[in-house]
Amino acid sequence: MPRFKFIVAYDGTNYHGFARQKNALTVQEVLEGAISSILQKPIEVVGSGRTDTGVHAKGQCCIFNAETSIEVQNLARAINSKLPSDIVIKDVQIAADDFHPRYAAKNKTYRYQILNSDTRDPFIDKYAYFYPYPLDIERMQEAATYMIGEHDFNCFCSAGGGAHSTVRIIYDLKIIKQDELILIDVCGNGFLYNMVRIIVGTLLKIGSQKLSANDIENIIKSKNRALAGPTAPPEGLTMLEIVYK
Amino acid sequence: MPRFKFIVAYDGTNYHGFARQKNALTVQEVLEGAISSILQKPIEVVGSGRTDTGVHAKGQCCIFNAETSIEVQNLARAINSKLPSDIVIKDVQIAADDFHPRYAAKNKTYRYQILNSDTRDPFIDKYAYFYPYPLDIERMQEAATYMIGEHDFNCFCSAGGGAHSTVRIIYDLKIIKQDELILIDVCGNGFLYNMVRIIVGTLLKIGSQKLSANDIENIIKSKNRALAGPTAPPEGLTMLEIVYK
Repeated sequence: MPRFKFIVAYDGTNYHGFARQKNALTVQEVLEGAISSILQKPIEVVGSGRTDTGVHAKGQCCIFNAETSIEVQNLARAINSKLPSDIVIKDVQIAADDFHPRYAAKNKTYRYQILNSDTRDPFIDKYAYFYPYPLDIERMQEAATYMIGEHDFNCFCSAGGGAHSTVRIIYDLKIIKQDELILIDVCGNGFLYNMVRIIVGTLLKIGSQKLSANDIENIIKSKNRALAGPTAPPEGLTMLEIVYK
Repeated sequence: MPRFKFIVAYDGTNYHGFARQKNALTVQEVLEGAISSILQKPIEVVGSGRTDTGVHAKGQCCIFNAETSIEVQNLARAINSKLPSDIVIKDVQIAADDFHPRYAAKNKTYRYQILNSDTRDPFIDKYAYFYPYPLDIERMQEAATYMIGEHDFNCFCSAGGGAHSTVRIIYDLKIIKQDELILIDVCGNGFLYNMVRIIVGTLLKIGSQKLSANDIENIIKSKNRALAGPTAPPEGLTMLEIVYK
């Protein structure tokens, strides 16, 4: 049976995350409903990974298996016609039978947006964490250098993720200021439960002078979640891109 | 009694326009509610002009008159604490007693955004008109040159606006392509009812080869609304800026 892969972008504001749940609306459920409706048979969608309630995606990659007479270049338009305006798929392709969007990923990039301004902005309120206090960006950038590389990131992991190992590689961590918006782009080989949001919460403690940049070394070494910063809120986070082998 | 002026930005998606209406929620009503609550007396807000249902603003200017012991530099934060996240005020200042946000305006700029792409984008769906068909931007830019200047714009005016004269000056009309987004910025001394949206609807007929660029001259001369294009939908429109004398 042919395997299809596609990219999906979603505004996560109104969903309880990506992965199907009982009694709560999720992106996976809505995707499966739309694709099943177009192909007129029950379809299971597998994604590259979960995203939490309220987290967004621009480049989530998913697969499904199906026999269909619809040409692959017409599938996106057909499926989009059944999706709400906050979920859009694109770039549907035929994939190798053994392609798996999670296990074949070489690296993933997440972006966290902070609105560092005196006043909220109604147009990005759902896509950025409003943080109206002074931040020392250079201090945060220095701290980021200590996070890059292969480390046991247990200190940046919420309980309940169920990962066998908490060792991950962060390939790059950029902090860019664009007027009142701060973009934090993290690229790694994989991420623990809430890892990006805890990294951001820790960077905010550094930017607001509550921790020193080089405290990061000891926090990572401690493997102690309690020494890191709080989990930054979900609305600032977007799964940006996945690169495959 | 002191007069205060302020700038307000709003996501118009959930409002029946700016101006107060019976039985429908408007931006003016929400602003008056928040300011009255902070100042503990009934306050009337006057804006620079109406915006229609679903139209957004980044630079709407308003005034209100009030005696208050709150320092002017603290008013924005106080009022914002009573506003929903889709309406934000900034830059509250004391104005001259005779300052009027409509009559003192030298020019206003509106922006209309078009998403000219095969697929919707969930992040700008509420702020751009999704138009998935080919558009000839150069043709639209040429047509724009015929609109600039002082003209009787009756052809670009919906019934019901109640303006005494339909003569207006368009100072500038820029059409800029940014990847899949087309930005149409119109600066003028004033705008008739639905004028920007009808200009955009007409430009779309030109960009999609249904009218020639120089047809604009005759459409304007005709003063006939029926010869212009349709009224483009509200979600693409944002009141961007007002410049005062």
